[in-house]
Amino acid sequence: MEQLQMTRSTQLKTKPATDQLGFGRHFTDHMLLMDYSKGQGWHAPRIVPYGPLTLDPSAMVFHYGQEVFEGMKAYRTPQGEVVLFRPDMNLKRLNHSCERLSIPQVDEKALLDAIRQLIVLEKDWIPEGEGNSLYIRPFIIATEPGLGVRAAHDYLLLVILSPVGAYYSEGIHPVRIYVEDQYVRAVRGGTGEAKTSGNYASGIKAQEVAEGLGFSQVLWLDGVEHKYIEEVGSMNVFFKVNGEVITPALNGSILAGITRDSVIHMLKSWGVKVTERRISVEELYTAWQEGKLEEAFGTGTAAVISPIGFMKWEGHEMEINGGETGDYAKKLYDQLTGIQRGELDDPFSWRYVVR
Amino acid sequence: MEQLQMTRSTQLKTKPATDQLGFGRHFTDHMLLMDYSKGQGWHAPRIVPYGPLTLDPSAMVFHYGQEVFEGMKAYRTPQGEVVLFRPDMNLKRLNHSCERLSIPQVDEKALLDAIRQLIVLEKDWIPEGEGNSLYIRPFIIATEPGLGVRAAHDYLLLVILSPVGAYYSEGIHPVRIYVEDQYVRAVRGGTGEAKTSGNYASGIKAQEVAEGLGFSQVLWLDGVEHKYIEEVGSMNVFFKVNGEVITPALNGSILAGITRDSVIHMLKSWGVKVTERRISVEELYTAWQEGKLEEAFGTGTAAVISPIGFMKWEGHEMEINGGETGDYAKKLYDQLTGIQRGELDDPFSWRYVVR
Ligand SMILES: Cc1ncc(COP(=O)(O)O)c(C=O)c1O
Ligand SMILES: Cc1ncc(COP(=O)(O)O)c(C=O)c1O
Repeated sequence: MEQLQMTRSTQLKTKPATDQLGFGRHFTDHMLLMDYSKGQGWHAPRIVPYGPLTLDPSAMVFHYGQEVFEGMKAYRTPQGEVVLFRPDMNLKRLNHSCERLSIPQVDEKALLDAIRQLIVLEKDWIPEGEGNSLYIRPFIIATEPGLGVRAAHDYLLLVILSPVGAYYSEGIHPVRIYVEDQYVRAVRGGTGEAKTSGNYASGIKAQEVAEGLGFSQVLWLDGVEHKYIEEVGSMNVFFKVNGEVITPALNGSILAGITRDSVIHMLKSWGVKVTERRISVEELYTAWQEGKLEEAFGTGTAAVISPIGFMKWEGHEMEINGGETGDYAKKLYDQLTGIQRGELDDPFSWRYVVR
Repeated sequence: MEQLQMTRSTQLKTKPATDQLGFGRHFTDHMLLMDYSKGQGWHAPRIVPYGPLTLDPSAMVFHYGQEVFEGMKAYRTPQGEVVLFRPDMNLKRLNHSCERLSIPQVDEKALLDAIRQLIVLEKDWIPEGEGNSLYIRPFIIATEPGLGVRAAHDYLLLVILSPVGAYYSEGIHPVRIYVEDQYVRAVRGGTGEAKTSGNYASGIKAQEVAEGLGFSQVLWLDGVEHKYIEEVGSMNVFFKVNGEVITPALNGSILAGITRDSVIHMLKSWGVKVTERRISVEELYTAWQEGKLEEAFGTGTAAVISPIGFMKWEGHEMEINGGETGDYAKKLYDQLTGIQRGELDDPFSWRYVVR
């Protein structure tokens, strides 16, 4: 990759109060851009003042959704360092998504280094306060103007940064989940294992229905048989059944979460048996009836761990662990956030220090 | 809807030569815009000079793909009138797509009238020449800045116009189709029956693979069993088997094509038996082996009718009708394009005259 060019903003923004951050509502002073054009490849990496994009109305992203994105967080450690959590995994997944969407591959190392430089420049934007962080959103959009349905020849890669508040302002607590029996997020052979906008567009409707019924997220079943558990909202999902932890296998229609991978490693390091396999909702319900469904929780960058206290599937209502956060969920949350925020040792070398 | 505001371009573009049009590569001097914001609803319809959009990099369309679109054509009749083909159906489908994507409904009548005014203004852009037309692309994008995954509160509706060349520069001719056995376009419960960008993003990869193997389009099988025929590229598909015409039923994962609907009406008016039902590729192959697969063709706004001369499914290669355009395909093409271009009577009242 060429040398990164930097144009500094001459008018810095006022930073929002750390107790008013929310998620993805405020953006920092600068962003990272890089262009792709056929023949030239990826070129002109640059940090510029955060500002509007100018695109032709026929830019392909508006019509055929050729887009991929990532999401990760930068944390400030008690020692004043700035750290990322396994960013190499995010950039690897970005390229995996690119592959599915016919978007040209990026140089992962060079992009990580460019992101590093952006974060160094914006380090004052990493909010103080327990659980706050700087959310990093890399994304690539097809910018070529034209209405033919095919892979574009021109793309823009962007990285924008947003200071975000703690997911749990009052401590980790369980959510209510609705097992979606009508809408489908993704199917084998589709784009489910890519992080691409269309997957999320497809889920908005189901999320609205679930919220209307008093649930905070939907649990997605597989698109083929409507039987097997896939994900929960924008999280992977784990269950503790009779002492064993089970999670849906990466079957091609679910996203390979980085928190998921980390949870599996961590549980195994504790000597817990973890199995990745197909899990039917029926099996889960039976386990629940027999009193063997001991815990359920989602995993993702936003919440890290999201305990599930209640699940509704068709006529069946399941309270899990008395509606309380389970022991594994609590311990995983404490350990993972501890590592992420630099408060604990890093036995798996997951931290990347931004220098 | 409020009164349409009009700002005329002061610098009109040079129009492209009518033999160099291609598809969706040139755009006219003006476009139609309309805003939506929560509380205010759809407002400020306006015709303005065609030009770039300015959007925040966090605009939701770039991240979560909340988008819908439509496609139709304006033709110039031998009498010098400008006509659209069943535009009410397109706007109805637009609202149907909006519903699935949690985008607020538009006033179909008012929008059609605004499109009418845009076309009147741009009528000199409707290209002369057999088979040429003015392609009309209405679309709606979520413009609200922010990274929370939910329906946006702000949207922009646009209508852009592109003079397009004849689909068949050398007369209607058959294409080679590859039956896709790995990738899936859509699944029951997904967004397949909506015209939304994510569906097309998902198909680009398969299209590339098929082209690499020497085919011009893919035939999509259902996402559940990979057995039943859904669509061909961006077209609906029909087969003539033993004198009867069959086409996949609208099962929720295929787009309800307006050409499809018109073909069904027209065939029935000729006394042909048309059945909408589930069709397995196996059944089709058996019919082919028995010499009963007499015709196959796709239907869509772009090509109107696209005869299929050859189909490959797993190891099986099927030449259909000796690789030639079938009688129904030819007659439907002639009749439909004749009605669309105002060269024939309009027995079904499908033409909408732009005045
Ligand atoms: C659909 C979906 N599943 C799972 C996850 C969890 O992935 P990660 O742990 O990498 O954040 C995400 C993203 O956060 C997601 O969008
Ligand atoms: C996926 C898909 N199927 C079918 C069609 C055909 O629809 P219509 O006849 O309304 O153009 C289209 C659009 O042209 C399409 O995009």
